[in-house]
Amino acid sequence: MAFGWIDEQAELRHRAGLVRTLRPRPADSPLLDLASNDYLGLARHPEVVEGAARAARTWGGGATGSRLVTGTTELHTELERELADFCGFEAALVFSSGYAANLAAVTALAPHGSLIVSDAGNHASLIDGCRLARGTTQVVAHAEPDAVRKALRTHDGPAVVVSDTVFSVDGDAAPLAGLAAACRDRGAGLVVDDAHGLGVLGDGGRGAPHAAGLAGADDLVVTVTLSKSLGSQGGAVLGPARVIDHLVNAARTFIFDTGLAPAAAGAALAALRLLRREPERAARARAVAGELHTRLTAAGLEAVRPDAAVVSVRAPSPEGAVRWAAECRAAGLAVGCFRPPSVPDGISRLRLTARADLSQGQIEGAVRVIGETRP
Amino acid sequence: MAFGWIDEQAELRHRAGLVRTLRPRPADSPLLDLASNDYLGLARHPEVVEGAARAARTWGGGATGSRLVTGTTELHTELERELADFCGFEAALVFSSGYAANLAAVTALAPHGSLIVSDAGNHASLIDGCRLARGTTQVVAHAEPDAVRKALRTHDGPAVVVSDTVFSVDGDAAPLAGLAAACRDRGAGLVVDDAHGLGVLGDGGRGAPHAAGLAGADDLVVTVTLSKSLGSQGGAVLGPARVIDHLVNAARTFIFDTGLAPAAAGAALAALRLLRREPERAARARAVAGELHTRLTAAGLEAVRPDAAVVSVRAPSPEGAVRWAAECRAAGLAVGCFRPPSVPDGISRLRLTARADLSQGQIEGAVRVIGETRP
Repeated sequence: MAFGWIDEQAELRHRAGLVRTLRPRPADSPLLDLASNDYLGLARHPEVVEGAARAARTWGGGATGSRLVTGTTELHTELERELADFCGFEAALVFSSGYAANLAAVTALAPHGSLIVSDAGNHASLIDGCRLARGTTQVVAHAEPDAVRKALRTHDGPAVVVSDTVFSVDGDAAPLAGLAAACRDRGAGLVVDDAHGLGVLGDGGRGAPHAAGLAGADDLVVTVTLSKSLGSQGGAVLGPARVIDHLVNAARTFIFDTGLAPAAAGAALAALRLLRREPERAARARAVAGELHTRLTAAGLEAVRPDAAVVSVRAPSPEGAVRWAAECRAAGLAVGCFRPPSVPDGISRLRLTARADLSQGQIEGAVRVIGETRP
Repeated sequence: MAFGWIDEQAELRHRAGLVRTLRPRPADSPLLDLASNDYLGLARHPEVVEGAARAARTWGGGATGSRLVTGTTELHTELERELADFCGFEAALVFSSGYAANLAAVTALAPHGSLIVSDAGNHASLIDGCRLARGTTQVVAHAEPDAVRKALRTHDGPAVVVSDTVFSVDGDAAPLAGLAAACRDRGAGLVVDDAHGLGVLGDGGRGAPHAAGLAGADDLVVTVTLSKSLGSQGGAVLGPARVIDHLVNAARTFIFDTGLAPAAAGAALAALRLLRREPERAARARAVAGELHTRLTAAGLEAVRPDAAVVSVRAPSPEGAVRWAAECRAAGLAVGCFRPPSVPDGISRLRLTARADLSQGQIEGAVRVIGETRP
C-alpha cells in the first residue's frame, strides 16, 4: 500500500514517546507566554496590528504573484529600504519566510565548485540550503573559527561560511569577529542568519552583525526573519547591492514564490519603525534574559548563559522535558520544549523566551513555576 | 575577493539580455492585470481584505513561533478543516508558502531508499523537494503516464510520483487519471501540486483532483497555494490524516518555520467561504481563458489551449518576449513574460491570466493590444 511505511514510523515514534501534536491556541490564551519568538512583545502591539490591517486594505490580501511579475509593491520596496538602512546594509530583499531567505542566500551564493563551511549547530533552513546548493559542504565543529580556517584552507575557489548568529536551541552566540577574520584571510564570503539577533542585539536592536562592527561589509550577507522581533511573517536577505541583484536573478525561492503578503510587510514595517522610536526594547529583552538566567541558576537549574533573548534549561530526558513543559502549562506558563530529533546533540531542554514586555512579577512567577515543576 | 564571481555572472546575464529587475507597483496601478495569479480576482475583494484585517486584530501581526510551539492558532485549525472539507480530503496542513508545502510533501514522503518519479515540467519547488529528499529521483517525460509506469517498474519499495496538476508555464493539465492508475498498479503514492487548479478546476473550484474523481483517495496527497485563487499567502498539503500526522512529525519546512501569519490565514479563509457561496467564479475563470485563447488564435497568434486559467502565447525570442511585454505595458496591459532560465524548454512566452472578474470589454481590449504589439 502507498505510504504504508508511514504507519511503521508512527508506531516507532509512539513507542519512543516522540509524537508531536498541534495544540491550537485561542486568541485570549490565559497562559503567560515564554515559548514564542515574539522577543519584543510586538506581535499584538496596536501599531503592528494596524500596520497589517492598513496594508491589507491598501494592497489586498496577497501579493498576487512572484516578486518578478506582479508581487513587488511599493510597500515591499519601502520595507526593504528601511530594513537595510536600519541594519546598516546597502540593500535588502524580502522573502515569504526566513526559511526561504536562507535557502536563497546559501544556494545562490554557493555555486558548483564552491565550498560551503557550515556550523554543526546551524538551523534546519541553513542545512537545507547547503543540501540544495551546488557547492560542496563541510560541516565544522560548533562555534570554532579555527575549524572554519582549517576547512577553508582545503579549498581554492569560491567559498562561503554559513552560521547562525544566535543559535536557536541554546541561545548562544556565534564568534562573528573570528568567523569574519577567517573568511577575509581566505577571500571567502560570510553568510549569517540573524533571526534571533535582530531586534535584540546591537545598538537599538540592529542585530549581531551591527554589534560586531561588521554591518555593511562587502563580504557579508545577513539573513533575518520578520516573524520574531518584528512580530510578523517573512524573511529578508541583507547585503551589498550586487549580491541582492544576484539573488533577484538566481535565487529560486525568490523567483518561484509568491511575494510576501502586504499585511505581513505592513506589520513588519510598523514594528521596525516602533523599534527605531523605542530602541530600549532591545536592551530590555537582553536584561530579561539575564535575569531569567540568574534566577534559574540560583534555583539550582542548569541554564545556558544567554547571549540574546533565548534561555535554555536542561531537562533530564525527552519524557522529562515533555512532562516538565506540561506541568508548567498546567500552572499557567507556556514554555518551549526541544527534544530529539529537533536538537542536534540529543539533549532535551526547556526553551524560554525573554520577552521585553515581561514584568518583574511575571519573571519571578515564571522562575517559581519552572523550579517547582522540575522533574 | 568574496563573491567576485557574481560580477562575472552579472556581466554574462547582461550580455545575454537576461537581467531581471523588480518593478514596484503602486496601490492604484492603472494597468489592466493579466499577469498575476489572482485567478478569481479575490485579492482585493472587500471580504478577503477584511478577513486579513480582522485576523490581524484578533490574533496579532504574526503567528509568533513554529506551528509546533505557539504558531498554531484556532484560526489555522479552522482554515485547515474548511480547506480539507472543500477539496474533499480527510485533513490539511497549512504552511507559510506553497513552496514550503511542496518541499514538505516531497521530502517527508520520499525517505531513504525510495523512488521519486518527477515530471520534467514540474515547478521549481517540486524539483527542489526532489533534490532535498533522501529518495532517488527519476525525471520522466512531460505528462506521459507510460513513462511513469516504466520508471516505477525499475524499483521495489516505497515510491512516489510527483507532478503539477496544471503546469505554470503553458497552463496545460497533467493526465491525473493515468498517473493515479500507474501509481495504483505499483502501490506508489501520488503527490500533485494543484496550485493552479484550486479555485479554477472541479466543481465550484474544488481543484483538479476533485475534477478527476480522485479527491480523498488514500494514496493521494495534494498541495495547494493560498496565494493564487484565494488571494492571500501560504500553502497547504491535503491528504489522509495519517499522512498529515506524518508531516507534522517529519516535515522540516513545517517544524522549523514560523506559522503562517494570522492575516494570511484569515484572508484565505474569507476567500474560501466566498468561493463556496459563489461557485460560478471557477467556471467563469475557465470561460475567460477559453475566450482569450479563441480570440488570440483567431488573431493569428500561437497560443496553447488552456486547461485552467493560464493562457500561454509563444514569443519569437527572449528579447522579442521582453519587448512585446513592454509594449503591452506601454499600452496599459500587464502580461507575464517567461523566458530562460525560468522556462524548462527554452521557449519564451507571454503568460496571460484569465481572471474571473475580467469584463468582455477588457478581454477584447487585451487581445487587441497583444495582437497590435506582436513582434
